[in-house]
Amino acid sequence: MRTVREAVLDVLRARGMTTVFGNPGSTELPMLKQFPEDFRYVLGLQEAVVVGMADGFALASGTTALVNLHTGPGTGNAMGAILNARANRTPMVVTAGQQVRAMLTMEALLSNPQSTLLPQPAVKWAYEPPRPADVAPALARAVQLAETPPHGPVFVSLPMDDFDAELTEAEDRGARTAAARRVTHVTGPAPDTLRELADRIAGARSAVLVVGDDVDASGAWGAVVALAERTGLPVWAAPVSARVAFPRTHPQFRGELVPAIGPLTQQLAGHDLVVVIGAPVFRYYPYIPGSYLPDGADLILLTRDAEEAARAPVGDAVVADLALTARALADRFPDPLAAGGPAAARSEERVRVTEGPEGVLTPSPP
Amino acid sequence: MRTVREAVLDVLRARGMTTVFGNPGSTELPMLKQFPEDFRYVLGLQEAVVVGMADGFALASGTTALVNLHTGPGTGNAMGAILNARANRTPMVVTAGQQVRAMLTMEALLSNPQSTLLPQPAVKWAYEPPRPADVAPALARAVQLAETPPHGPVFVSLPMDDFDAELTEAEDRGARTAAARRVTHVTGPAPDTLRELADRIAGARSAVLVVGDDVDASGAWGAVVALAERTGLPVWAAPVSARVAFPRTHPQFRGELVPAIGPLTQQLAGHDLVVVIGAPVFRYYPYIPGSYLPDGADLILLTRDAEEAARAPVGDAVVADLALTARALADRFPDPLAAGGPAAARSEERVRVTEGPEGVLTPSPP
Amino acid sequence: MRTVREAVLDVLRARGMTTVFGNPGSTELPMLKQFPEDFRYVLGLQEAVVVGMADGFALASGTTALVNLHTGPGTGNAMGAILNARANRTPMVVTAGQQVRAMLTMEALLSNPQSTLLPQPAVKWAYEPPRPADVAPALARAVQLAETPPHGPVFVSLPMDDFDAELTEAEDRGARTAAARRVTHVTGPAPDTLRELADRIAGARSAVLVVGDDVDASGAWGAVVALAERTGLPVWAAPVSARVAFPRTHPQFRGELVPAIGPLTQQLAGHDLVVVIGAPVFRYYPYIPGSYLPDGADLILLTRDAEEAARAPVGDAVVADLALTARALADRFPDPLAAGGPAAARSEERVRVTEGPEGVLTPSPP
Amino acid sequence: MRTVREAVLDVLRARGMTTVFGNPGSTELPMLKQFPEDFRYVLGLQEAVVVGMADGFALASGTTALVNLHTGPGTGNAMGAILNARANRTPMVVTAGQQVRAMLTMEALLSNPQSTLLPQPAVKWAYEPPRPADVAPALARAVQLAETPPHGPVFVSLPMDDFDAELTEAEDRGARTAAARRVTHVTGPAPDTLRELADRIAGARSAVLVVGDDVDASGAWGAVVALAERTGLPVWAAPVSARVAFPRTHPQFRGELVPAIGPLTQQLAGHDLVVVIGAPVFRYYPYIPGSYLPDGADLILLTRDAEEAARAPVGDAVVADLALTARALADRFPDPLAAGGPAAARSEERVRVTEGPEGVLTPSPP
Repeated sequence: MRTVREAVLDVLRARGMTTVFGNPGSTELPMLKQFPEDFRYVLGLQEAVVVGMADGFALASGTTALVNLHTGPGTGNAMGAILNARANRTPMVVTAGQQVRAMLTMEALLSNPQSTLLPQPAVKWAYEPPRPADVAPALARAVQLAETPPHGPVFVSLPMDDFDAELTEAEDRGARTAAARRVTHVTGPAPDTLRELADRIAGARSAVLVVGDDVDASGAWGAVVALAERTGLPVWAAPVSARVAFPRTHPQFRGELVPAIGPLTQQLAGHDLVVVIGAPVFRYYPYIPGSYLPDGADLILLTRDAEEAARAPVGDAVVADLALTARALADRFPDPLAAGGPAAARSEERVRVTEGPEGVLTPSPP
Repeated sequence: MRTVREAVLDVLRARGMTTVFGNPGSTELPMLKQFPEDFRYVLGLQEAVVVGMADGFALASGTTALVNLHTGPGTGNAMGAILNARANRTPMVVTAGQQVRAMLTMEALLSNPQSTLLPQPAVKWAYEPPRPADVAPALARAVQLAETPPHGPVFVSLPMDDFDAELTEAEDRGARTAAARRVTHVTGPAPDTLRELADRIAGARSAVLVVGDDVDASGAWGAVVALAERTGLPVWAAPVSARVAFPRTHPQFRGELVPAIGPLTQQLAGHDLVVVIGAPVFRYYPYIPGSYLPDGADLILLTRDAEEAARAPVGDAVVADLALTARALADRFPDPLAAGGPAAARSEERVRVTEGPEGVLTPSPP
Repeated sequence: MRTVREAVLDVLRARGMTTVFGNPGSTELPMLKQFPEDFRYVLGLQEAVVVGMADGFALASGTTALVNLHTGPGTGNAMGAILNARANRTPMVVTAGQQVRAMLTMEALLSNPQSTLLPQPAVKWAYEPPRPADVAPALARAVQLAETPPHGPVFVSLPMDDFDAELTEAEDRGARTAAARRVTHVTGPAPDTLRELADRIAGARSAVLVVGDDVDASGAWGAVVALAERTGLPVWAAPVSARVAFPRTHPQFRGELVPAIGPLTQQLAGHDLVVVIGAPVFRYYPYIPGSYLPDGADLILLTRDAEEAARAPVGDAVVADLALTARALADRFPDPLAAGGPAAARSEERVRVTEGPEGVLTPSPP
Repeated sequence: MRTVREAVLDVLRARGMTTVFGNPGSTELPMLKQFPEDFRYVLGLQEAVVVGMADGFALASGTTALVNLHTGPGTGNAMGAILNARANRTPMVVTAGQQVRAMLTMEALLSNPQSTLLPQPAVKWAYEPPRPADVAPALARAVQLAETPPHGPVFVSLPMDDFDAELTEAEDRGARTAAARRVTHVTGPAPDTLRELADRIAGARSAVLVVGDDVDASGAWGAVVALAERTGLPVWAAPVSARVAFPRTHPQFRGELVPAIGPLTQQLAGHDLVVVIGAPVFRYYPYIPGSYLPDGADLILLTRDAEEAARAPVGDAVVADLALTARALADRFPDPLAAGGPAAARSEERVRVTEGPEGVLTPSPP
């Protein structure tokens, strides 16, 4: 039978999580013992750096990042960066070593006495397995949660004496089963919702799109460009964006909204429908009071994050996958290239430029 | 301008939440002062009963239940029932009175000193508004969260001196805006996911359906019956179900699964694909070890609850609306009534029986 | 070697905790199996009643109460009463059964998924032992914390499969060692503090005593009567007292303070020093603004509860045992019986009065 | 009337807390506006450094440290160092800016949405005042808690728009009252406890002292040296001590105990009574099983920390001030210098040795 260590490594392999970012101490050594050749350990010397590297790695690789910290203090040092990863909606599994189980009730040195409370509220779930045999299934569950939209960090505390424990046949089978699981979360809006969305856009006198980070994070860039071009609507970047959600040189791009209530509303003056895709409504920062919207305007938020939908101070919301929704919406508007006309001209111009020899991913200016 | 009380009542009216279940004390009197004629107050004399009534009311009415409790002790008495409402996925807004703000820092009698910690982990969100003007927007946010799948209870603590505060014009407008919001959560799986699901069912040698509470809660009864009839698969009820998710007299119904690992797997012996709809995998109760599935069998869970998907010990999962998914899956299989053949015969037989004179809502046996 | 069950029973025997108040379900049966003859189980049919009985039992017996609840819902139902026990400062160990460890990570039915979060903030400590061998030491630690001033409830979650586990020799020895521990908390103020306290009382133009629940709870009744009689100060009962902290028929007793800022200060008008013993400063209830003290008056709080000292809105505080402090203060004032004079006369009068035919419960003569 | 800012500064002045360690962002600017001349701001560029400096400052100055961090991420970055401050029992008030109240319910940028959960479990108390007028009283309460043994960090979240609010006359008076409070915590054991302690030491065949960090932190160095010299007992340093609790060159000093169960017990072999003063029992680190004590030995822990007393795996405990207790115990043993005899000889020898030319820092002669 396998040891807990072997079962853990197999769970991670099954998820493609073979790069570990960490700053280990003695409580993490059992996890690193017999460290396998197909894994890579990236060392950082302060935990903020460790988690920052993991955050970027997740972004660049498209995988769920794996972090290994040193019991309570290591987790503590990382908390600012984990909060950041949560704001970034980065899929990330943070692990931390823990004293041997036999010395936890007396809180021996290096114990992490309230291990599941410490990383709150920066993580979506925090867990300490109740037995060594539960370590691999707990990590499998953690990965699933990290990869649930809105993605984000989760935490698992790992008593250091668990790794050498041997699994029974049933426990071994349970760990394999957990490792093999696959959960799908990509969902589009109901047909009725889609129809209503399209009708509201089509019926508006002067609609506008506002696009944010999650357009990029959810792979909706192309679909959102298509939606913008099919509808011909002007496009703003949401305030204080961390990612580029729309080509800055696109002729329909209007710039960045400012992060303050009154001034932002002035920027949107004249519009009667604001369609926000993949951004909070709105990431205000200095407090400059005012109306949330121009007089008489409506707002619709498309988001993958139900909590973001709930806390918006104004407007309706649809919680669904952004790429599926934007693509399906775009399909309900006529293709300007097929139809001809000014919008088509602008679009063709853009397309010609992006097909140039330099191979960059974003369109050049008209 | 309106008072906080008037703004709160308007938020509740906008949601159709005009029935209040409660067991008030002095801290709740300001909420009840000038209680309007279009509201109804249902009194219970112990909080478990109050929340139980509200839970049933939400189920029967299809609305979000509103509960009003007496500061810390009232919330404490209700915690078992609120946990139950969470397990039932009941949309419910639980409010509790709080001492006047001026006496909270000294923890005067009837203070609820850690009001947002107390209802954890039975609620999805717990909040105490930072100003009187935030009470109405906080309640609006609470309702949105309660109505996010998986539905469940949320908690808002209400300092008793907030209700008489008068709103400025901007605050009044903010409260109206919050009251008018509408969030849509009904989403179906991506086309690729749907195709794969259908292929796995069609390609199985011997698939089986297992249906649970959320089939009923999400209004997927008809779609699931259609899926069962189009595919001709046998149907089991998930263990320890709280609702009826499939007609018990339907010819394809096979009975209830038992809530224990080994015996449940024996009941499913011979199947190579288990499709679970709207139930945890599985609600085991006594611990009888064994394999989670028959040898060689696969499992697919369809659920609206991403956390339920993450913690299943075995099988794949798709997180999406159950009615949309089941209906779209059913549409990918030929209609036995149209096509003729044995499945059609079974279905027609069932239909004839349910059209009999006794008027019951479920089909009779063939 | 002993089983966990036997070790647990021995920990409880060592503390005199052989009466169990409970409302069990299946998860509690392993604790009750082979229930020994020297233990008594008192059944209640709702958890608020169970904890209420235990609270009264602790008060009447002078021991730490032991409660046994049914996993999450049972603990939830009890939360109001546990909050009450905390307000009462009742030493109480609350236990709740938990699913078998093997089914916790999947959250099988009857799991208490966040068992240590659920009873917060009503308990001083909540714990789920990391191994079966830690159950008995964890309960020993829990008892020590419950009996630390300010006394209060603590919580231990008990996985049901732990009870039949057998201890190794070292674990058995550890459990016996834990059971045998004894912690002493009775402490008096430093000599300098005592001297300053006495000087402030002696130097006041018109001091007054205010006495509260913890005078009774800490066995300081006699010492406080002595202090009152030696100093001849008038005595008020703190607002909304739950216990009788001073003989109501004593000639120095002036009545109960009212629980509101302004009116209470009026009752104390004319005094320049308020000495509060064993009560919060103050248990206000309706909010009637005003000064916390008469103009120019000082306040000194004697309390065993450092958090109560910290949150008082006015006055100085000394955190120490009440009986030791009051007795030592009394010893610094001349005995009126020995010295003769008006105070002695009052005291003798009191003694005669309390021996009168009306049979009221007042202290015996000095 | 004063503003909240002025009231806050006066609370801090009243406590001698005029040095602020911080790494501010925009949410902290209102606290720093009009920064007064009698305050000093010590800037650090990463929060771990900020809190580390404050920790050392508290140690060196004997005051309560004041820290000012930047909303959620700043607090997150500091969590490792705050955990360390808690382990060090450093009195420390950690503050963090918060968004303006009007934008908290929508969670605008720089909001710290669960501000009181974030610093847990590293702090003894976390609070966000319910109104601007409560900021100064909340800080006063926070200081009192930080200075309650066992000392430690506390946290107050400060909405940035609170500082310019003006206080009413009653609020102003309340803030002054809160600033003027003084709480005393120095307590000695009851006479009976003291007598029993002395009898156990005198009656032991071969007792030994083990001294730890809190001897130094509580100013008990001289009293513990006196106790050691009066009793003539050998003295060990507790494992992994952070402070020097006994002169290393003293003839009775035996060295440091090792941080592992079995080996530590071997070091204490032959003793029948272990008296631990101001240290956990024990700070074990690698897990090397064994008996907690030599066969037949007893242990008594003297500590100011009731939770440390509760979680010790072995032995009795007395919770009281260390200097008072050690001094009172020493007084119960004859002065070897006065009495002559072997103990006196040893002590004189010590005095001669400490006066040698090597200039080490050891106590002066009695």
